[in-house]
Amino acid sequence: MHVSDLPIGVFDSGIGGLTVVRQMRRALPNEDLVYLGDTARVPYGTKSPATVVRFACEDTQFLADQQVKAVVVACNTASAWALSTLERRFDLPLFGVILPGVRAALAASRNRRIGVIATPATIRSQAYTRAFLARDDSLELVVRDCPLLVPLVEEGWTSGPVTEAVLREYLAPLLQRRIDTLVLGCTHYPLLRATIAAVAGPEVTLVDSAERCAEYVAEGLRQLGRLCVGRTRPGRVLPFVTDDTRWFDEQAAQFLGETPDPASRVALPIIEMR
Amino acid sequence: MHVSDLPIGVFDSGIGGLTVVRQMRRALPNEDLVYLGDTARVPYGTKSPATVVRFACEDTQFLADQQVKAVVVACNTASAWALSTLERRFDLPLFGVILPGVRAALAASRNRRIGVIATPATIRSQAYTRAFLARDDSLELVVRDCPLLVPLVEEGWTSGPVTEAVLREYLAPLLQRRIDTLVLGCTHYPLLRATIAAVAGPEVTLVDSAERCAEYVAEGLRQLGRLCVGRTRPGRVLPFVTDDTRWFDEQAAQFLGETPDPASRVALPIIEMR
Repeated sequence: MHVSDLPIGVFDSGIGGLTVVRQMRRALPNEDLVYLGDTARVPYGTKSPATVVRFACEDTQFLADQQVKAVVVACNTASAWALSTLERRFDLPLFGVILPGVRAALAASRNRRIGVIATPATIRSQAYTRAFLARDDSLELVVRDCPLLVPLVEEGWTSGPVTEAVLREYLAPLLQRRIDTLVLGCTHYPLLRATIAAVAGPEVTLVDSAERCAEYVAEGLRQLGRLCVGRTRPGRVLPFVTDDTRWFDEQAAQFLGETPDPASRVALPIIEMR
Repeated sequence: MHVSDLPIGVFDSGIGGLTVVRQMRRALPNEDLVYLGDTARVPYGTKSPATVVRFACEDTQFLADQQVKAVVVACNTASAWALSTLERRFDLPLFGVILPGVRAALAASRNRRIGVIATPATIRSQAYTRAFLARDDSLELVVRDCPLLVPLVEEGWTSGPVTEAVLREYLAPLLQRRIDTLVLGCTHYPLLRATIAAVAGPEVTLVDSAERCAEYVAEGLRQLGRLCVGRTRPGRVLPFVTDDTRWFDEQAAQFLGETPDPASRVALPIIEMR
């Protein structure tokens, strides 16, 4: 079997990374995908850097053991803190979600005032700030951590008065600074897109890191000669989780836009960090 | 050293269990306490039963290794799902938070309509329903899972319009049924007490399981002859966490009502469940 025929591995702290898988299914319909959601330890966005790095190494080791040809870190928090460690530890092409979002926002903004909303851990990492300013240090960046948005999505409250009130509170300082572009810096946030758009108003362009990540992976694999160009059958999605499969199986379609095969529950390899 | 001089172990998924410790410090001021918050894997309330049981066994094993004389499961979710397994596996007195809350609510209610709010996992366990109905099967119980309340407390939004809106939504079906007593079935909820009281109105008596648990532990240890009756110095609180200590050290005083010693980070023993 040629390496280009192997599946692509994708992991996230939980179920949010399926929004990346959804876009990858559109961009790369014939690729097989192995998805890992670390649902026993979700969320990552409120945990410390050292813990996020350790969890991300264990997730990547699991995918490497499944013989994947590349790994997509479909979690902004893990991309922010762990990508460089993963690149040192694993001999596999690795793709994060931050860089593609940054590129898309730079292309979209006209007034050079860009907002980023993300989990506390992602914001604390300054990964977005550093990636933006390395490309254009004249930008005005307004970042905000939004710890309630992941729980709201997981509760299923993607619209309605409570979610609008939370978003008005979180977005107020960004809108006061008149941003024209807003990066949804967490793979859960695409499910709030309509409500975020309503609160942010029509002058603000929303950049969905999930969507941009899929294009970035397609481009990267093409450059590496690892696209499975010969396959004509539709690709498959093989889901794994670390907690009970039932909740995942019930919720997955909402994120993925199609019903995946039933998930399998797995124990992850344990990695001791030094 | 006599067994009664050993510390009492207390664990929770995170920081909420410190509300139980706070009440234990009042009820048992001379007892030494060892606290474990599993902050790397918080929350438990949205995880599956099998995962909650495994985590609770690992937490209890850690405390047993610290030579404690008893273990308080200061987490409603772990009490609901894991207490019977812990009682089988560990040769230690074990105290949960559910039974004391049930007893206090039964004593407080006049119209026999009692509400319970808790995490999804606690509600799904039916632990409260079974404990209430075993004591009085003529009760009318109205239970509601409230997955957003723990994230709201951890965000620090314990009052204000968003929290009021969330609570109005969650409490509406309970208030429509004219409950006169409401059990706060999660150790995070005492921090929302003032806002819950404002939304529920003056006719509803709030039962704080943390407060009742401390009395229950004092009574239980007295019966077992394990109270440290001879000690005159104030007891100490020794905190351990599984994620970074800084966030815990910053937040702990809000839950505990005093500043504890700095926490130590620990790796828990790994238990394979059969």
